[in-house]
Amino acid sequence: MRRIKCTIAYDGTHFAGYQIQQQKRTVQGELERALSIIHKGQFVRVYASGRTDATVHAYGQVIHFDTPLMIPDERWPKALNALLPDDVIVKEASEVPSSFHARFSVKKKEYRYRVWIGEKNVFLRHYVYHHPYDVSVPAMNEALRYLIGTHDFTSFCSAKTEVDDKVRTIYEAEVVQEGEELIFRLVGNGFLYNMVRIIVGTVLEVGRGERCAEEIKTILEQKNRSVAGKTAPGHGLYLWHVSYDN
Amino acid sequence: MRRIKCTIAYDGTHFAGYQIQQQKRTVQGELERALSIIHKGQFVRVYASGRTDATVHAYGQVIHFDTPLMIPDERWPKALNALLPDDVIVKEASEVPSSFHARFSVKKKEYRYRVWIGEKNVFLRHYVYHHPYDVSVPAMNEALRYLIGTHDFTSFCSAKTEVDDKVRTIYEAEVVQEGEELIFRLVGNGFLYNMVRIIVGTVLEVGRGERCAEEIKTILEQKNRSVAGKTAPGHGLYLWHVSYDN
Repeated sequence: MRRIKCTIAYDGTHFAGYQIQQQKRTVQGELERALSIIHKGQFVRVYASGRTDATVHAYGQVIHFDTPLMIPDERWPKALNALLPDDVIVKEASEVPSSFHARFSVKKKEYRYRVWIGEKNVFLRHYVYHHPYDVSVPAMNEALRYLIGTHDFTSFCSAKTEVDDKVRTIYEAEVVQEGEELIFRLVGNGFLYNMVRIIVGTVLEVGRGERCAEEIKTILEQKNRSVAGKTAPGHGLYLWHVSYDN
Repeated sequence: MRRIKCTIAYDGTHFAGYQIQQQKRTVQGELERALSIIHKGQFVRVYASGRTDATVHAYGQVIHFDTPLMIPDERWPKALNALLPDDVIVKEASEVPSSFHARFSVKKKEYRYRVWIGEKNVFLRHYVYHHPYDVSVPAMNEALRYLIGTHDFTSFCSAKTEVDDKVRTIYEAEVVQEGEELIFRLVGNGFLYNMVRIIVGTVLEVGRGERCAEEIKTILEQKNRSVAGKTAPGHGLYLWHVSYDN
């Protein structure tokens, strides 16, 4: 068996999320369906770097699967894209050692979150969070700096999570304004359930002047989801890049 | 009765076009449905600057309607947007004299056409024409210059048209490259059925080196649709701006 790693992108708008669910349209479901056709009906399990929720997009999700087929690396994207719907695309594929695992070998993940502060725009409705308020970009960057480092992120994690260890390391956290768009960028060794969306929701409250930037510190210390801000909607979120060793 | 002019935008992806059709989802149908609710069930006819086809977008379509209601200008967008689906938006509204007509008072129209020459991008699939070929932007601009002026555009008009007079004046015609995107911009006193899409399809053939720029002159002279190039797909096209006197 050979192990194939693929970088994929998807528009999350019409998916019930990445992970397979009965009777629902999922990215994993589409990938496994396409692979089963290529494997003449044999089921092939796909493993991803992590799940994404309904409406959340991916620019650089990473998956792997095992196959007995001798298809050259550069042919995999063509073969899969011919069978995938037009809202998922395999950008590249390469054979990797069997020690590689899309989820367990992750070193860093980058998420981006797009916020639109201009007038409502029909073309962006599925791709940015429309938040037409005056916000202070410097105050938001000050707030984000409190998140950099290794912390217990219990306050920035959905209470629905099943994970026990809530300690994660954030390497980079910033927001830049490009015209009428704010782009949040977060790089870390891992992210808890809803973590980026709760961070963005809370930092936007700082941006609007409803909280001061230093509150982020107290919120982290309290380890209590209810002291942080609202969860920003899924459709502004992008799993941007996943890094591995090599 | 008061006449209200509105500038609207719509994402054409999920519409069978602007103009009302039985059993189909159209922009006009949605506008008239919303207006009928505001008018307590009374039908209100909407007039647009012109139709757009299925999948074609509008950034600045203009419509008008007549109403007995005394709603201030700035309230119309809010009232209509509350009743419209999320792929149509009323950007602004103003009362105009009854001599104004969204279609017959048009002075100039600007269309844009977006072409994506990079790798396939799932997020742009409904908003640009994916055309991943090497093209010469200077050659395309040379071709476009032959279209500027007053010409009989029979060769650049769908044979399905019902219009007799095929003479139109083009004031501006250019293409600019922004990163991996080509943006065609055409400004004229009016456009025939499929005219922008046939122009773009033909000029892309010049860009790819399959025709020389001067051929545009001969194509115009022949007044024959079959000598021009392919019709570019609808989803790259945007009705960008409509100008009136004042």
